[in-house]
Amino acid sequence: MKMLEDRILKDGIVAQGDVLKVSSFVNHQIDVPFMCKLGEEFYRLFKDSGINKILTIEASGIGIACLAAQYFGVPVVFAKKSKTSNISNDVYTAKVPSFTHGNISDIVVTKDFLTKDDKVLLIDDFLANGCALLGLKAICDEAGAEVKGAGIVIEKAYQGGGDKLRAQGVRVESLAMIESMEDGKIVFRK
Amino acid sequence: MKMLEDRILKDGIVAQGDVLKVSSFVNHQIDVPFMCKLGEEFYRLFKDSGINKILTIEASGIGIACLAAQYFGVPVVFAKKSKTSNISNDVYTAKVPSFTHGNISDIVVTKDFLTKDDKVLLIDDFLANGCALLGLKAICDEAGAEVKGAGIVIEKAYQGGGDKLRAQGVRVESLAMIESMEDGKIVFRK
Repeated sequence: MKMLEDRILKDGIVAQGDVLKVSSFVNHQIDVPFMCKLGEEFYRLFKDSGINKILTIEASGIGIACLAAQYFGVPVVFAKKSKTSNISNDVYTAKVPSFTHGNISDIVVTKDFLTKDDKVLLIDDFLANGCALLGLKAICDEAGAEVKGAGIVIEKAYQGGGDKLRAQGVRVESLAMIESMEDGKIVFRK
Repeated sequence: MKMLEDRILKDGIVAQGDVLKVSSFVNHQIDVPFMCKLGEEFYRLFKDSGINKILTIEASGIGIACLAAQYFGVPVVFAKKSKTSNISNDVYTAKVPSFTHGNISDIVVTKDFLTKDDKVLLIDDFLANGCALLGLKAICDEAGAEVKGAGIVIEKAYQGGGDKLRAQGVRVESLAMIESMEDGKIVFRK
């Protein structure tokens, strides 16, 4: 999506440790009018897939998931990163290592909110090694919900997570696919 | 807001420890079409306040903040609960005890994303003892940003956080105000 690639080139910062910082418009400050356009694009891509629920993971997936969900007219469920006192024990769980934080989280989804009747679109801001998305996929599998696809804002294609998801039969649509970030230069896959 | 009060009575669960669970539509599963109506209501209430930024806190404030922000046409900034490797060191911070988790978090906002030119609407799903909102207010004060108001989905009025914010001169608009939850019975303040 050209407007997203242009924005990444304008405002994205390649930081140490192979990190692409887009915190000025994606995942700390959220440029909501801009992200609405991305949400509309996800709708265009998946509107014929019978989606009745969007599943994402806290925290930075929630904004784009909600903005996309309004075009589908469906609820969002966000997986939480640890058990809290107001989540019931009746949850689906998966273990997810975090690329950013360098730790492993349990992600949890209350069973009431994901069932075998659900046709799910996974949405997240980033797809890198794929651990978060594979965790969400595993939770859907456990619930018997059908994953109809994954909508990703930025895929770091060279980290292989997208390939793993596609190998599991998931239709992955990434609005920007980064081929490489060597020497701070962002190259997109065409 | 009657539609919200009705929904809380229908789907809210009063749980042990004075917890109101609205996780089926507010803060685990998010009923996006419903929350859009709440976002529109925040816009109706604050549209003449010159808001140019919405500030919330991860994770459960992000959805309603983004859905409201689109009506204002402004960005959302969400305070993060701990420093991660992709936030710069140049941040405003406040300490916030969590009612739900029973611990204390540092919340941080990158200085680039909050300045003395900002007219800020604080948005959150819950206002109870007010610690989160007072932390956001303190961060705005430190940044020199002007807090034009706070939009809250559910205020547990008997916990006093709203009063503390109002005593600091903040215009607090809560779409549902709970007067009491004794014996599992939810009573709204009129």
